[in-house]
Amino acid sequence: MSAELFVAKHRDTLNTALEALTSRGYWSPYPEMPSPRVYGETAAADGETAFQGLQNRPFDLDQPGAGEGRVGGERSPFGFDLGITYPRVDREALLGAAEAALPAWRDAGPLARAGVCLEILHRLNAHSFLMAHAVMHTTGQGFLMAFQAGGAHAQDRGLEAVACAYAEQAAIPASARWEKPQGSKAPPLVVDKTWHLVPRGVAVVVGCATFPTWNGYPGLFASLATGNPVIVKPHPNATLPLALTVRVAREVLAEAGFDPNTVLLAADDPAAPIAKDLCTDPRVRIVDFTGSAAFGTWLERNCPQAQVYAEKSGVNYLVIESTDDFKGLTRNLAFTLSLYSGQMCTTSQNIFIPKDGIETEDGHKSFDEVCQGIATAVDKFLGNTERAVEVLGGICNPDTLARIDEARGLGRVVLDSRAVDHPGFPEATVRTPILVALAAADRAVFEDERFGPIAFLIACESGAAALTLAAETVEAKGAITGGVYTVNPEMEARAVDLALRAGINLALNFTGGVYVNQSAAFSDFHATGANPAANAALSDAAFVANRFRPVCIRRMGA
Amino acid sequence: MSAELFVAKHRDTLNTALEALTSRGYWSPYPEMPSPRVYGETAAADGETAFQGLQNRPFDLDQPGAGEGRVGGERSPFGFDLGITYPRVDREALLGAAEAALPAWRDAGPLARAGVCLEILHRLNAHSFLMAHAVMHTTGQGFLMAFQAGGAHAQDRGLEAVACAYAEQAAIPASARWEKPQGSKAPPLVVDKTWHLVPRGVAVVVGCATFPTWNGYPGLFASLATGNPVIVKPHPNATLPLALTVRVAREVLAEAGFDPNTVLLAADDPAAPIAKDLCTDPRVRIVDFTGSAAFGTWLERNCPQAQVYAEKSGVNYLVIESTDDFKGLTRNLAFTLSLYSGQMCTTSQNIFIPKDGIETEDGHKSFDEVCQGIATAVDKFLGNTERAVEVLGGICNPDTLARIDEARGLGRVVLDSRAVDHPGFPEATVRTPILVALAAADRAVFEDERFGPIAFLIACESGAAALTLAAETVEAKGAITGGVYTVNPEMEARAVDLALRAGINLALNFTGGVYVNQSAAFSDFHATGANPAANAALSDAAFVANRFRPVCIRRMGA
Repeated sequence: MSAELFVAKHRDTLNTALEALTSRGYWSPYPEMPSPRVYGETAAADGETAFQGLQNRPFDLDQPGAGEGRVGGERSPFGFDLGITYPRVDREALLGAAEAALPAWRDAGPLARAGVCLEILHRLNAHSFLMAHAVMHTTGQGFLMAFQAGGAHAQDRGLEAVACAYAEQAAIPASARWEKPQGSKAPPLVVDKTWHLVPRGVAVVVGCATFPTWNGYPGLFASLATGNPVIVKPHPNATLPLALTVRVAREVLAEAGFDPNTVLLAADDPAAPIAKDLCTDPRVRIVDFTGSAAFGTWLERNCPQAQVYAEKSGVNYLVIESTDDFKGLTRNLAFTLSLYSGQMCTTSQNIFIPKDGIETEDGHKSFDEVCQGIATAVDKFLGNTERAVEVLGGICNPDTLARIDEARGLGRVVLDSRAVDHPGFPEATVRTPILVALAAADRAVFEDERFGPIAFLIACESGAAALTLAAETVEAKGAITGGVYTVNPEMEARAVDLALRAGINLALNFTGGVYVNQSAAFSDFHATGANPAANAALSDAAFVANRFRPVCIRRMGA
Repeated sequence: MSAELFVAKHRDTLNTALEALTSRGYWSPYPEMPSPRVYGETAAADGETAFQGLQNRPFDLDQPGAGEGRVGGERSPFGFDLGITYPRVDREALLGAAEAALPAWRDAGPLARAGVCLEILHRLNAHSFLMAHAVMHTTGQGFLMAFQAGGAHAQDRGLEAVACAYAEQAAIPASARWEKPQGSKAPPLVVDKTWHLVPRGVAVVVGCATFPTWNGYPGLFASLATGNPVIVKPHPNATLPLALTVRVAREVLAEAGFDPNTVLLAADDPAAPIAKDLCTDPRVRIVDFTGSAAFGTWLERNCPQAQVYAEKSGVNYLVIESTDDFKGLTRNLAFTLSLYSGQMCTTSQNIFIPKDGIETEDGHKSFDEVCQGIATAVDKFLGNTERAVEVLGGICNPDTLARIDEARGLGRVVLDSRAVDHPGFPEATVRTPILVALAAADRAVFEDERFGPIAFLIACESGAAALTLAAETVEAKGAITGGVYTVNPEMEARAVDLALRAGINLALNFTGGVYVNQSAAFSDFHATGANPAANAALSDAAFVANRFRPVCIRRMGA
């Protein structure tokens, strides 16, 4: 099938996506429920079978430099080794193959590239059950979350990047005649111009351990849609979801008549990490990264040859100043703090509360009562073990267990973390959140990101002081999400003002079925790029427009 | 007059500019001819009087930190001291004032900011005669060129940046309702969202000595239109044009009810340069720079807290492979090489020619005949002294004189540079171009930028080898302009392919009244950002979209 046919097949989706980007209401073309009516009666079983078929064998991926040995040691946080191996990276072979693929992909133009990208996403969507298992058993997400965040929502983010990239490219005309009048006595000066959009060069996507597809697809598809060959370097604990993605991409590229090496996998070896050498290679001109602040900052400082888009870490905040729905507030927080054991870049860590308590629909509640209310809600929410293990998922990194332990000594434990036995996976590592009360003076403790199911309840001098302290932590350490509960219009205005100054997206009075840690493609920009947590937002013009450059060929007009 | 009235006054201009950006044909709202019918019968005399009135006195500019003494030592390349002094910079006062101006300017929103920017440009246009004198007697440009490049064309570039910035901001809606269906039995989830476009912070424009307004306005207006207060730091030899600009901007800002400190002047002192301390200040979040590769690269590496948009230097090329209009070619080159004594970032330096000569409409011409043809055309073009001094202008930097001297020893001099006596300014420093023949092996000589009226005629193995060598110099050292003369379709295709690979705008067979060193706003992107000469293009989406960030306030829907 040629690229033109893919364009025709997906033109409506592209057009709707372009419209959605400007209206920014709710929209998704990829159904988020694992429903047999949508995905097919056998899709669930087929996906599970396919996942089992991948285990304990080499992953089938024919790309340059394979044959140099195998790497791989993924272990499911639900308690078993995947036993899958991937080709060991031959960096020269990969970079050479990517560079060789560039001219034809560049010359295909924005529309053909969008068509190919949409077909890749379409096929990834069809593989959503397999992908859900792959994401679940590398990241530790529960199945439904893995299906949604690793499947449909990641595909949404990929499509968003494709549409955004297409829009920016389409804004530059392919050609124009420049005709400058020279007065009544002389003919005009005429120059015929054609613009060619050239990609920056080879792009690298450095994947993360927790949301390999959701965080990886924006950079992958933004670079691909703008003409750059992409080398995908997954986190070594979460290679499979991106390896599956690369395989689908290569299959579609080849079918459309392009070099499959336009997308390549660089499977990492924890014993000999490749990211630094790869990202600093002079041939690499774009790096997309999600992960630690330390390595993100290292990339920003040490890859002057490349555009670096980095989502790093931050300390997300909530301020509880007052509310007219304390029950809704605590229910909302119970879900936010529990979801995927807080292993999200959007989970709230620091909950600032006036030390003298807050006003609620039930009258005044002391600081301790507020803390206890949240603790009770978390406990109740996770009281049902079947629901608890689905929501919490597994802990994907042993360091997180150590951080939970350490948190016990950082302040007064309001709710301790406990292990949960998973009915389906006896070896799974499942933990509930720990809530620790601190004082405003414990800034050194709460200003550090403590990734995982760890939240601090921080007693502040007042509601206003809480808002200020929250903004200061964002300015110092960055954040992806912020939330404020208040029924006081002045406090709300102050919260908005501080959010604008600190450059943080703000959720006000979230008490229902929408959560501060959720971010919807085509509507929410993920991160702002305006505080230290990230230097870009997913996905806006700034995220795509510098991945290609306009080159003009000027000819004297006849 | 309020910002709303400025918006109403200039709405048509803004709309036409937005349209021009997408069609990219010829358009300019600012007349480039210094015509009394356009600018008024007394405009020329008024401008000259105003310029004389500025000389030998303190420049009137009331801004924070003034009173710390004065700086200034501008000398006209036409042979006299301007005698103008500016307030010495109090960095803390300037940065504090800029930060204080931010919130109101941010909250004004994109349309009000565009209205204020357009009024600033409108008044700058009305001051075009004064500006022409200011640019002429700081940069050394001839009067007409100073009027055009320093006036109307610079205003075009400013307007282009405003329109581009407005378009990118307008693409994000002010608000949207996100409404996610929950099936037939439950009400939808509803979130009301408002987006606030927040500026990065304080912006600094580092001006250059040769085109202070043309190169300074894009960054100034792009930052201003996106909500960032701007501190303008001119080159100490060309402070006046930007000081006038800042004064007009402050006047319009105040009239519109904004803090005039939204735009500030930081006049530099050659004895104690301020750029490094200013640009690395943590409060500075955007830097626009035009100047040397060394300092541009320094800024890129040493301002991690800021977005740095840098136009550095490069070695522009021409390749003469064959032509059917040798006379037109040589006439075209004579103008290009002579204009403003080659003190342009767009002037061709390296002219690659097959060592065995080329085919022309008059048959074969040897390498020496081609060189001689160009030399003769330059000589003839500059034979008329009155025209010569207008075209050449004055040499603005003594280092350029030294480079001309040095060039005499670098190869075989085909045409020597000579001093020209300026009929109107006996003390002016006027020089014609020097043409030096080199071999392809003299790469170390021609790969360096040698700013000024210095061009190399480089004998290459063949036309194909000439194209390859040109592309290699672009990839190694960068370039803003490239040009190729060929009647051979295969060579033309090869030239285009190499231009796309090297990321260089290419002029093909320019023989008439359009020149490779000219760049028209709304049509030509100036530089590509795809080779070492510049990391950005004037002005595309990438140049503006990262100067602001979208911040979302989310509220649960009713």
